[in-house]
Amino acid sequence: MENFEFFNPVKILFGKGQIAKLRGAVPAGARLLVTYGSGSIKRNGVYDQVIANLQGHTVSEFSGIEPNPAYETLMKAVEVVKRERIDFLVAVGGGSVLDGTKFIAAAARFEGEPWDILAKNAPVNAAVPLGVVLTLPATGSEMNWFAVISRAGTQEKFPFASPLVYPKFSIIDPEVTFTLPARQVGNGIVDAFAHALEQYLTYPANAPLQDRFAESILLTLIEEGPKTLAHSADYNSRANLCWCASMALNGLIGLGVPQDWTTHMVGHELTALRGLDHAQTLAVVFPGVLAERKQAKRAKLLQYAERVWGLRTGAEDEKIDQAIQNTRTFFESVGVKTHLKDYGVAPDVVESVSKRLAARGWTTLGERQDIGPKEVEAILSHSL
Amino acid sequence: MENFEFFNPVKILFGKGQIAKLRGAVPAGARLLVTYGSGSIKRNGVYDQVIANLQGHTVSEFSGIEPNPAYETLMKAVEVVKRERIDFLVAVGGGSVLDGTKFIAAAARFEGEPWDILAKNAPVNAAVPLGVVLTLPATGSEMNWFAVISRAGTQEKFPFASPLVYPKFSIIDPEVTFTLPARQVGNGIVDAFAHALEQYLTYPANAPLQDRFAESILLTLIEEGPKTLAHSADYNSRANLCWCASMALNGLIGLGVPQDWTTHMVGHELTALRGLDHAQTLAVVFPGVLAERKQAKRAKLLQYAERVWGLRTGAEDEKIDQAIQNTRTFFESVGVKTHLKDYGVAPDVVESVSKRLAARGWTTLGERQDIGPKEVEAILSHSL
Repeated sequence: MENFEFFNPVKILFGKGQIAKLRGAVPAGARLLVTYGSGSIKRNGVYDQVIANLQGHTVSEFSGIEPNPAYETLMKAVEVVKRERIDFLVAVGGGSVLDGTKFIAAAARFEGEPWDILAKNAPVNAAVPLGVVLTLPATGSEMNWFAVISRAGTQEKFPFASPLVYPKFSIIDPEVTFTLPARQVGNGIVDAFAHALEQYLTYPANAPLQDRFAESILLTLIEEGPKTLAHSADYNSRANLCWCASMALNGLIGLGVPQDWTTHMVGHELTALRGLDHAQTLAVVFPGVLAERKQAKRAKLLQYAERVWGLRTGAEDEKIDQAIQNTRTFFESVGVKTHLKDYGVAPDVVESVSKRLAARGWTTLGERQDIGPKEVEAILSHSL
Repeated sequence: MENFEFFNPVKILFGKGQIAKLRGAVPAGARLLVTYGSGSIKRNGVYDQVIANLQGHTVSEFSGIEPNPAYETLMKAVEVVKRERIDFLVAVGGGSVLDGTKFIAAAARFEGEPWDILAKNAPVNAAVPLGVVLTLPATGSEMNWFAVISRAGTQEKFPFASPLVYPKFSIIDPEVTFTLPARQVGNGIVDAFAHALEQYLTYPANAPLQDRFAESILLTLIEEGPKTLAHSADYNSRANLCWCASMALNGLIGLGVPQDWTTHMVGHELTALRGLDHAQTLAVVFPGVLAERKQAKRAKLLQYAERVWGLRTGAEDEKIDQAIQNTRTFFESVGVKTHLKDYGVAPDVVESVSKRLAARGWTTLGERQDIGPKEVEAILSHSL
C-alpha cells in the first residue's frame, strides 16, 4: 500500500425530509446566494422547499448554470457574489451546479485572473464557504473537493481541486430525485461505476480493503441500478444509488492505490468536441480502455471478472473478455449507448481527440503514464 | 435504509515515516501536552521520533495512562493541562491512551464535575483540540469521536461521545507497530472484527453498500490477520490491519443501519469485574450472542455465512452454525481464547454481570432492545 493522506470534512445529511435541516445548516446571519440550473427545481418542488427553509435569511439567486458549467456563466455569478457581499453559497442541483458553485466560491475570493485556477493550476487560498442540496446522484461532487469547468469559447474542459471547496454540508434526499428523467439516472449510474473502476482497475497494490470497497460499489450499482430505473419511486434502490455515487468519488476507495483517469480525460475531449453527455463519453471510452490495456491490467481484470461478475470458471482470457463485454452490456442496460455512431459521431473524432491531447502536452495517461495519443486512438477504435 | 448524518473531519496521515509530519500538523505556537502510557514508546523509538518532531514547541508530558484508562489518572492530567495552560494535546499510543486523552480534552474545559460527562451524559461544550500518533491498531479511536473510561474505585466503565474530541489529525505509521507483542496484535484483530460485526449482524435494512463495506473489513481481517501475526514486520499486512481497524469504527459502515452493541456492553462488565483484556471479553461474548440470537439474526447470519465464510452449500441451519463456529475458531486462531475458563474465571461471574446490568437500569440491549439480564446469562453460558 502506498502512503496516503485522507481528509473529508463534508457533513452528510441523508434521507427523507432532510432539506428541512437546511435552516440549521447555513450560518446564522449569512448573506446567501442560492445557485441552480435550468429551473427543473422549480417544477419538482425542491426550489420551494429550499426557499421555505431559508426564510429569515438574506437570499439572492443565480440560475442558469448549464451542464458542463461554463466559465463565462460562472463569472457572472462571481459578480453577484461581490456586488451582494455574499458570504455563503447554497448549490441546489446535480454535479454541474455543484462544480460550477465550487468554482464561483474560489473565483470570488481569487486575487488575479480566475481562469488561471483552471488553466494554470493557480493555488486557491480562499473561497466562499458553500453547502449543497443534491438533486442528481452521479458525480460525487457533493462529497469531494474537485470540480470540472468548461470554457465555451475555446471548447476546453479543465479540473481544479482545493480543500477550501469541500461543501460544509450536503443534503441528500433520495425522494427529490424520483422525478429525474431515466436518461439522467442512467448517466448517474454509469458515472459512479466509472469512478469506482478508475480507482480500481489498474494493478495490484497490496490494498485489499480498498479493492473490496470498490468492488462493493460496483456490485451494488449492478444490483440496484436496474431496480431504480425500473421503479423510479422505490426509495431504497434510489437511496442506494445515491450513496454509491457519493462513496465512489469521495476519496476513500482511491487511498494508497494507483489510479487511471484515462477514461475521464478522453471523455472530456469528446464532450468538448461533440457535446456528448459526460456519462455517454465514459460508456464509449471505458470498454476500449479495458480491451486495449488488457495486458497491463491483467491481474486486476481477472479479479474484476471473478469478484464483480462472478466469472469463476473458464480460461483466464475468456473471463477477462467476458468481463469487458459485461461492462459494455451493463452500460447499455441502463440506457447509455457505448458506440460513437450511436450518438451520430463520425470516426474522424478519434484523430481530433488525440491531436487535442497531444497539443495540450498531455502525452501520457494511465496508471503507468504510458498511454499517449496513439494509444488513445486505439482505445477509441474499439467503440466506433 | 434509515436516515443518517455523517461527519468525520479527522485528517489521516498514513504510512511509512509519517511521524515527520507531526511538526506541520500541530498548531504553530501551541503549548503542547504529550500523553502516553507505560513507556513502551520509549523502548521502540516512537517517543524519540515524536519529541524530535516537536522541537521548537513548548512541550509538557503526561505518562502512565493505563489500559482501560482510569478517571482518577486522567484527572491528574487535567490538572497539568490547567496549570501549564496547555492548548493542544498529542496522544501517543493505542486506544486506551487515545480514549483517555479525549476525556482529558473534554474534562479540562468542563464547567462542573467532569465525572458527569461519563455518568450523566452531561453535554460537552468545549474541549482542548488533540492530535494522535497511533501505536496499536485496534479500537478505531484514532478516527472517531468516542471514548470509554473506567473508574477504578467503583469498577465502572462508561462511554462518552462528542464531535469536539475528534482528533484534528491521526498519524498511522504501520512500521511503529512491528514491535507490538502478539497478544496485543491478536487483541486488535478481534476488536476490529467485533466492531464490524456489531454494525452488521442485526437484520436486513436495505443497505447493501454498508453490508458489503462491513463484509470487506471482515474478509480482509480474516485474510490479513494471520499474515501479520506470522510476519510482524511485513509492511503490507500490518498496514491493512491498521486501515481495517480505523475503518471498522469511524462511523461509515454503521450509517443508516441497525446496530447491536451487546457484546461490547457485556464485555465491559467482564473487564470491570475480572480484569480481562477488552478484546478477550469480545471473543468470549460474541459467539454466545450469535448462538443465542440465531433466530433474530437469521437472515444476516445466513448472509454472513455465505459471503464472509464462503458457506454456499448445505442446509441453512448448518451454514449458520458453521459460521458461528468459524467465528470462534478465528478468534482462537489469532491467539484470543473464547471461554471464561481459559482466563480462570468461574461461572459465577455470569450472575454478577447480569445483576450489574440490571442494577444500572440497562435492562435491554440489542438491535430490537429485547436482550435483558436473563438473555445475557444465556449468552454467557455458551462460553463458560
